[in-house]
Amino acid sequence: MAEPTRLSAAMAEVAREVEEELDLLLAPVPGLEQRLFEAMRYATLGGGKRLRPFLVIASASLFNVARPAAVRVGAAVEMLHSYSLIHDDLPAMDDSPLRRGRPSSHIEFDEATAILAGDALLTRAFEVLADPAIHGDAGVRIELVRALALAGGGHGMCGGQMLDLLAEKATEPMDIGAITRLQRLKTGAIIAFSCEAGAILGKAAVQQREALNAYAHDLGLAFQIADDLLDIEGSEAETGKTVGHDAAANKATFVSILGLERAKAQAGLLADQACRHLEPFGAAADLLRDVARFVVTRRS
Amino acid sequence: MAEPTRLSAAMAEVAREVEEELDLLLAPVPGLEQRLFEAMRYATLGGGKRLRPFLVIASASLFNVARPAAVRVGAAVEMLHSYSLIHDDLPAMDDSPLRRGRPSSHIEFDEATAILAGDALLTRAFEVLADPAIHGDAGVRIELVRALALAGGGHGMCGGQMLDLLAEKATEPMDIGAITRLQRLKTGAIIAFSCEAGAILGKAAVQQREALNAYAHDLGLAFQIADDLLDIEGSEAETGKTVGHDAAANKATFVSILGLERAKAQAGLLADQACRHLEPFGAAADLLRDVARFVVTRRS
Repeated sequence: MAEPTRLSAAMAEVAREVEEELDLLLAPVPGLEQRLFEAMRYATLGGGKRLRPFLVIASASLFNVARPAAVRVGAAVEMLHSYSLIHDDLPAMDDSPLRRGRPSSHIEFDEATAILAGDALLTRAFEVLADPAIHGDAGVRIELVRALALAGGGHGMCGGQMLDLLAEKATEPMDIGAITRLQRLKTGAIIAFSCEAGAILGKAAVQQREALNAYAHDLGLAFQIADDLLDIEGSEAETGKTVGHDAAANKATFVSILGLERAKAQAGLLADQACRHLEPFGAAADLLRDVARFVVTRRS
Repeated sequence: MAEPTRLSAAMAEVAREVEEELDLLLAPVPGLEQRLFEAMRYATLGGGKRLRPFLVIASASLFNVARPAAVRVGAAVEMLHSYSLIHDDLPAMDDSPLRRGRPSSHIEFDEATAILAGDALLTRAFEVLADPAIHGDAGVRIELVRALALAGGGHGMCGGQMLDLLAEKATEPMDIGAITRLQRLKTGAIIAFSCEAGAILGKAAVQQREALNAYAHDLGLAFQIADDLLDIEGSEAETGKTVGHDAAANKATFVSILGLERAKAQAGLLADQACRHLEPFGAAADLLRDVARFVVTRRS
């Protein structure tokens, strides 16, 4: 299935807007602490598919949210995503020297600077969401802050990362239920936040939120299965990151349990299922449908 | 100058309340991610003077803020403080094996768990501030989130920590102006937030906020000079952390530049000056005066 042109153009436009926004929000500073901001910019600018900001903006567009607000929330999610990549790549964690086709932050700078840059990016994400520029209604901003904190913390991304670390050390491989739960926390929670953020900005009705949430749930799993497939079938040149990590760590993944063909089929089924949740939105959700198909066919 | 009994009793009461609150807010969870919560609890519970929560609660009491709200904000600040200690103690940062008289988090658990526990505590601090239980007014909560993010990020604590790392590597020692700026960022910003939080919760007038801010500014510097003195004169048994770190790292501190006696005198002058900023509040601010004297006479 070829990537639709409509989606390519929309993703390129979002990537450009988010890059510009991040460049502004992470403006370099004078003084000795400029090294910290350089590291924050290095890890955040100039790379990535900007999938999470795209989900924020595409979801927000269902509710006619002003685009600059959605772009800014997308930039905040991308800061949080970048922080998680910096910390995941550290020697004590996944020990990955390569990210987005360049040396990881702790290689380009040093471990201490990388840890701090991650901390500062996480903090800045909340600062951006709390800023009145996002939305005049403090209630909307506080809901965004709370939802991001829930998705990023011990019951979300950090919890999933802990499970992932333990999985590598475990003597018995995880079963499919445990892996599904791990991935729902580790990558699913922030993907779900990205879709939820559009609904929060648009003050969407409960049923609309639930439809988006169901979409995000299936999308997140489809994304992760595709990621596991790329770790086996992808090349470093294509993905821009270290591949073969899971197999080297002898880690149970969707692919190691289901096998290559069943994993591919499962990802496709989940993408179809994700799209069906979007029916209430009609043609307005076409970009979200495109992105569901894209995540399971991408090569990077 | 002996520590006043009034202050000892008030600090013990705050420590008890904050411990109870943190125990609730960091409730252990079932499932494999319990290890993450154990690490978060290990780093946060059962130790510390709880100076920052004390400042939140004492400042809030000037404006008749409901005590449970102030205690909860205090617990959030303590989570942020604990995260900063976990990450500061890491091998790539200060490489300190001892904290609060016990093995540092990366020794008790492992580096990866320590990094994640710090990340999750930082995230949880924002989640707690965003929760409606803090205050019914979303505007108050969002102001707290924003102020904490500003104090903790690249222009605050993380920026100060970056300067501190660079100071250790620099060939020329920093001068007194550079050290003052470093410490204003590294420890001063969160101390200032703690006092500011009381004013935010109490919807204080601008002049009252400015008075508290001036107090916090002098208090923060006095606190840091006293900390430098303890690093030289204190013992590990008294302070519960690794001492002699600054001298071993050949790091410029207030004490290395001013000398022991002038540093002590300067800390005392700053504490007096801090108290004078509290005049508008009259006797209601006596505990804040006591704490200014305490920080320069403490032995741990």
